[in-house]
Amino acid sequence: MSNVFVHMGISLDGYVAGPNRGPKNPLGDGGTTVHEWMFKQQAFLRTHSTGDAGETGPDNRVIEDIFSRIGANIMGKRMFEEGEANWPEESPFHTPVFVLTKEVRAPWERKGGTTFYFVNDGLERTLARAKEVAGGKDVRICGGRDVVLQYLQAGLVDELSLSLAPVFLGAGLRLFDGVDKRTLALEPVSATTSKDVTHVHYALKRSGTR
Amino acid sequence: MSNVFVHMGISLDGYVAGPNRGPKNPLGDGGTTVHEWMFKQQAFLRTHSTGDAGETGPDNRVIEDIFSRIGANIMGKRMFEEGEANWPEESPFHTPVFVLTKEVRAPWERKGGTTFYFVNDGLERTLARAKEVAGGKDVRICGGRDVVLQYLQAGLVDELSLSLAPVFLGAGLRLFDGVDKRTLALEPVSATTSKDVTHVHYALKRSGTR
Repeated sequence: MSNVFVHMGISLDGYVAGPNRGPKNPLGDGGTTVHEWMFKQQAFLRTHSTGDAGETGPDNRVIEDIFSRIGANIMGKRMFEEGEANWPEESPFHTPVFVLTKEVRAPWERKGGTTFYFVNDGLERTLARAKEVAGGKDVRICGGRDVVLQYLQAGLVDELSLSLAPVFLGAGLRLFDGVDKRTLALEPVSATTSKDVTHVHYALKRSGTR
Repeated sequence: MSNVFVHMGISLDGYVAGPNRGPKNPLGDGGTTVHEWMFKQQAFLRTHSTGDAGETGPDNRVIEDIFSRIGANIMGKRMFEEGEANWPEESPFHTPVFVLTKEVRAPWERKGGTTFYFVNDGLERTLARAKEVAGGKDVRICGGRDVVLQYLQAGLVDELSLSLAPVFLGAGLRLFDGVDKRTLALEPVSATTSKDVTHVHYALKRSGTR
């Protein structure tokens, strides 16, 4: 049975991206500072075909664990468009990726095992398709923020992991702005930190008002 | 040598108080949900003279550690006024408390070892006075938010602890809104969690741009 999870990098003031985002500035102004800890990990660099360099400590294991459990990814149209303009020829997902979009487009197969499927089926049916092809592994709701929040609030996510970077963006896109708190009940499960980033892992509660 | 520290309860969407705060609603609408984990701990209830009830697990030890290290407190005028209307006769601080205010007022001595001193000396001189009377113990910058941020940005704080409750307020006062990120560099030191709350402890970096 596939678990459905979200893993987001977030600044200490709550932002997942800076202002002025777009295909030429995918994380927004200052947004890369939220992910700097990740960009230097071996597991991240390997996935992005940058060889065997990088750190191999606890933060690397966090990334390794995330990548190794993913059987399929789901993302929004805007995240895809921002990525399409920037990913290397070998897309870094290495799984089927479902892109939520109204655009009708044939599957787009990339080197290294990533195939993008463009779907307009709604949250639940897309998730069902992702689970079908995940081969018993887990499904990651990648982003962007709106898609993540929609899946969280629809009660379709089992686990939320936040990697809290000790930086401030001051502007941009906050993960939880506009959240409907009646639909989202979280219970912390674990917390670890390095000097660069703090990882907090939550289980989504199924009971309560939902 | 006294360390200077901040400990704040904060919601997952970054708020330390809800909207519509005032002496009759000191934490603002919904604000108590951020501190519910604390209100049920033995160390908190004891400090508020509510007897020996309460939980005694890891979250209680966090509170015990905080209270046991404090030799003097500093707070803003508004936090004092909100508290004055609500604290029991035996104020819960049990140390000297310096209240930053333009009001000229004689020291106010309460049962149980709390004396409030009303000072208009600026951040640094008030801190120096607090260290003098702390008897080698630490100085806590209690709040409210503006006073905490002023001390943080002035480079006068050694440690910041956040107790991150898995709740959302959606409105109110955010700890880091308007923070000048050039003046505040944090390094995570530890992170622990219970099912109710996640404690993240930061050291303030003295180097860098400051």
